[in-house]
Amino acid sequence: MSSTDKRYATSIDLPTEDVFRNLQNACHFAVDIGGSLVKVAYCSKLHRRTSQVRDHKEDNNCIYQVLEEDGYTRRLHFIKFETKYIHQCLDFIRGHLMQSKEFMLEKKNIKATGGGAHKYKDQIIKTLGVQLDKEDEMECLINGSNFLLKNIPDEAFIYQRHGQSEYQFQGIHHDIFPYLLVNIGSGVSFVKVESETKYERIGGTSTGGGDILGTWISSYKKPSSLYAVTFDDLLELAEKGDHKKVDMLVRDIYGGEYSTIGLKGDIIASSFGKAARTDKENVPCYKDEDVARSLLLSISNDIGQLASLYCRLHQLKKIYFGGYFIRGHPLTMHTISFAINFWSKGEIQALFMRHEGYLGAIGAFLKGAEEEDTDRYTWGENFAGCSGLSSSNPLLDSRERSSTFDMLELDKLEKMLQPCSLLLDPNSYLPDTVDLTTDTAAREYWIDCFSNSVDKCIWIPFVRSLLDTSSHCLSDCLFTDPYSQVRKLVIVMPRKMPGSSVEYFKS
Amino acid sequence: MSSTDKRYATSIDLPTEDVFRNLQNACHFAVDIGGSLVKVAYCSKLHRRTSQVRDHKEDNNCIYQVLEEDGYTRRLHFIKFETKYIHQCLDFIRGHLMQSKEFMLEKKNIKATGGGAHKYKDQIIKTLGVQLDKEDEMECLINGSNFLLKNIPDEAFIYQRHGQSEYQFQGIHHDIFPYLLVNIGSGVSFVKVESETKYERIGGTSTGGGDILGTWISSYKKPSSLYAVTFDDLLELAEKGDHKKVDMLVRDIYGGEYSTIGLKGDIIASSFGKAARTDKENVPCYKDEDVARSLLLSISNDIGQLASLYCRLHQLKKIYFGGYFIRGHPLTMHTISFAINFWSKGEIQALFMRHEGYLGAIGAFLKGAEEEDTDRYTWGENFAGCSGLSSSNPLLDSRERSSTFDMLELDKLEKMLQPCSLLLDPNSYLPDTVDLTTDTAAREYWIDCFSNSVDKCIWIPFVRSLLDTSSHCLSDCLFTDPYSQVRKLVIVMPRKMPGSSVEYFKS
Repeated sequence: MSSTDKRYATSIDLPTEDVFRNLQNACHFAVDIGGSLVKVAYCSKLHRRTSQVRDHKEDNNCIYQVLEEDGYTRRLHFIKFETKYIHQCLDFIRGHLMQSKEFMLEKKNIKATGGGAHKYKDQIIKTLGVQLDKEDEMECLINGSNFLLKNIPDEAFIYQRHGQSEYQFQGIHHDIFPYLLVNIGSGVSFVKVESETKYERIGGTSTGGGDILGTWISSYKKPSSLYAVTFDDLLELAEKGDHKKVDMLVRDIYGGEYSTIGLKGDIIASSFGKAARTDKENVPCYKDEDVARSLLLSISNDIGQLASLYCRLHQLKKIYFGGYFIRGHPLTMHTISFAINFWSKGEIQALFMRHEGYLGAIGAFLKGAEEEDTDRYTWGENFAGCSGLSSSNPLLDSRERSSTFDMLELDKLEKMLQPCSLLLDPNSYLPDTVDLTTDTAAREYWIDCFSNSVDKCIWIPFVRSLLDTSSHCLSDCLFTDPYSQVRKLVIVMPRKMPGSSVEYFKS
Repeated sequence: MSSTDKRYATSIDLPTEDVFRNLQNACHFAVDIGGSLVKVAYCSKLHRRTSQVRDHKEDNNCIYQVLEEDGYTRRLHFIKFETKYIHQCLDFIRGHLMQSKEFMLEKKNIKATGGGAHKYKDQIIKTLGVQLDKEDEMECLINGSNFLLKNIPDEAFIYQRHGQSEYQFQGIHHDIFPYLLVNIGSGVSFVKVESETKYERIGGTSTGGGDILGTWISSYKKPSSLYAVTFDDLLELAEKGDHKKVDMLVRDIYGGEYSTIGLKGDIIASSFGKAARTDKENVPCYKDEDVARSLLLSISNDIGQLASLYCRLHQLKKIYFGGYFIRGHPLTMHTISFAINFWSKGEIQALFMRHEGYLGAIGAFLKGAEEEDTDRYTWGENFAGCSGLSSSNPLLDSRERSSTFDMLELDKLEKMLQPCSLLLDPNSYLPDTVDLTTDTAAREYWIDCFSNSVDKCIWIPFVRSLLDTSSHCLSDCLFTDPYSQVRKLVIVMPRKMPGSSVEYFKS
């Protein structure tokens, strides 16, 4: 990188040029500029080598042949960074875009959404030398949300801290409407979604992500070296805190539960209520982690209650959470889920999304892709280029757990996928015979297997997601499908071994 | 006071023994012990001198005679103090109660409500030497609320910062149901009230009064001399603040309004959102008053939105606010009123109550008074012993504006008041011909008049509330009704001067 790039890289913590993967091949751009974060989506044309199993009629014994072909594919990249660094990032992008022949030739308009689409419009046009099409934020959010829910398996999940399985992934559903989308960015929007085209913003609140961090920063008077100044820092602190030292619980007021109105003793009666009763002659020092946890809980509970009330008002049974507030943080997800369950008496379901922060960017991108009939294709997640769910492992550093540069990549698949027409009920069909999120023993086994056994592989449909990940990584490096020979073998086998279909696939 | 009393007095800021007026004559007690405040109600038997206009048939010219009579009346006193001083206050009360012959003779049970009724039960029984009857908090709140709305004229009011009149007092309504009561103490309860006996707590939130003060205290690391550690201090700070320095507005994100979804540019998009975007290398020092204002606005807006949603869910059109959070603070009332108007599109009315903090104590007292058929009497406010609405005058010190020892006194009236049966619509009848809250010129004139003209008085029904106040003060000092002679004259007059009833009463 040039010395200028290095300065930009330092200021925005670019770990490596790899964050903007394949930028030099980019052709389409979309941006979602929020109050705090900018989300960029760009499509790149990539070289790809594939193995195809083809009919071969010349050989009586082997009627299939494996052929390798070179071609191109379209891949969508999504990244995000803080809005305050938008100028540096635009410069960085421009520097690399100039290398993209496709971009220089086609020079398509950038689709832009979010508040900053208005505020930074001129800056973007000037820096990137293209025109900007402003797209409505709500429309992009909803399009993005619908797209993810319909295209990406296991995009949405339920979180249950004490459930048999902590994460319950939902698979792809085809009847997702109606639902409430709660988009939590700096502020919060509640959007009722009734169909692909029918949606309405029915409410909003200013107590969102900005509230927690901003309350902290504006209040604390510590030396800057002790500042927790990123939201991730605060979340990390909150994990360790004990909110009961700061909050007033029902039992602190009643000496126990208030059974007449169904309030258990450990329910928070008053956020920061204990701190409010402090004797001014003798102010204790409240620990950072306790205060952080109390802040997080009060905001999360509030959002959960508001969401429940909006659902009840509009007879909605599902809530999907978008925006970059939750970040897969277990405490946040648990609190919100608990609140919704409490206020709706279990009738409304809270669901979270793995790519919650990209709804607007995806929606904006799709507006441009409409011109290329993208609806006639299906997009699949490229695991090689995606960050996983934030880990709750406290031993990982905060960047690994919740990176400022979360990445998502989607590959355009060759054909549009449809549910198999022979299935009685596509929504309840589970192709996987083992669920690695619930079966801990199986998970440990198979991850060990894959990490230890790179050369020898046993192909079983039980671990489809792991196989897909492996396949994507190899494909990224232009390796072809290592299982093509095995596939050929298996396709032949059914002719020889009648019986249970499960039996066919055992090695 | 003894030296022990002096120590107690200092610790709880007792300005004078007068705060616990007539304690030595107390007979009944009720307490409402909340998370932060204790509200005490006690009834005292008081000496009273009255002037009565009686028939006198001996004199042909003057058929009425004024007689002075000595008698007794019942007066209810209400005071409040911080829960953390409950032990000292119980000692203080006990010291004075020992002088009450009535109390020592009758030794009626104390009616107690609020969370502390459970927590401090043993302490109360031991210190005061009486039994405690625990009364349900919700029931007391609702009984107290209904009582005030039906008995105290101008108890409830609408606040409109830019209205023709800032305060619109409501008078007494007889059809108050249904309504939503939002009781804001340390925490918040939302109670749907459908009749005297039918009510249900339909929701609650932990973000109430404790949240603001507690967030402040637990976060700030200033030297204690600069601490704002009472809620009143915070409210005073907030008056001077500019929240726009801390909050992110719609225009900060969009560069203007977001007209598609009806959000004006000055709406708060993200509370503390500006502070959240602080560059950690260069953290500005946010002013106390700006942070305080932002805190107050975010909590008030949230309560307003939740209240509106509960009303919409239950088809309620009126919200009364109880609890000691609002304290007549103009900024709080404006914010809550604005939020409710916004979220309900003007269909739901926010109303505040002058004696918002005493609902539970009044309700608890009435439970005991039922035994004395108090329902057969009417209670009237004794202006001589009551604090007024908190003043928004910044020149007054904070104690005068919002005293820790707010007082309320109610006198049991001799007869039960009923609406005049000749009135077509009692709810719309206004006995006053001049409204001193709207007519600034009249208000200034009559206050001047009364303060300058102690000796010579012109009796006009236009200024009924001022006359009542004057009359109560005089009565307190055992002066009789100074207008009895004038009343005699006026009652005679109609026989001589047929014509407009208004004309009768001009001097």
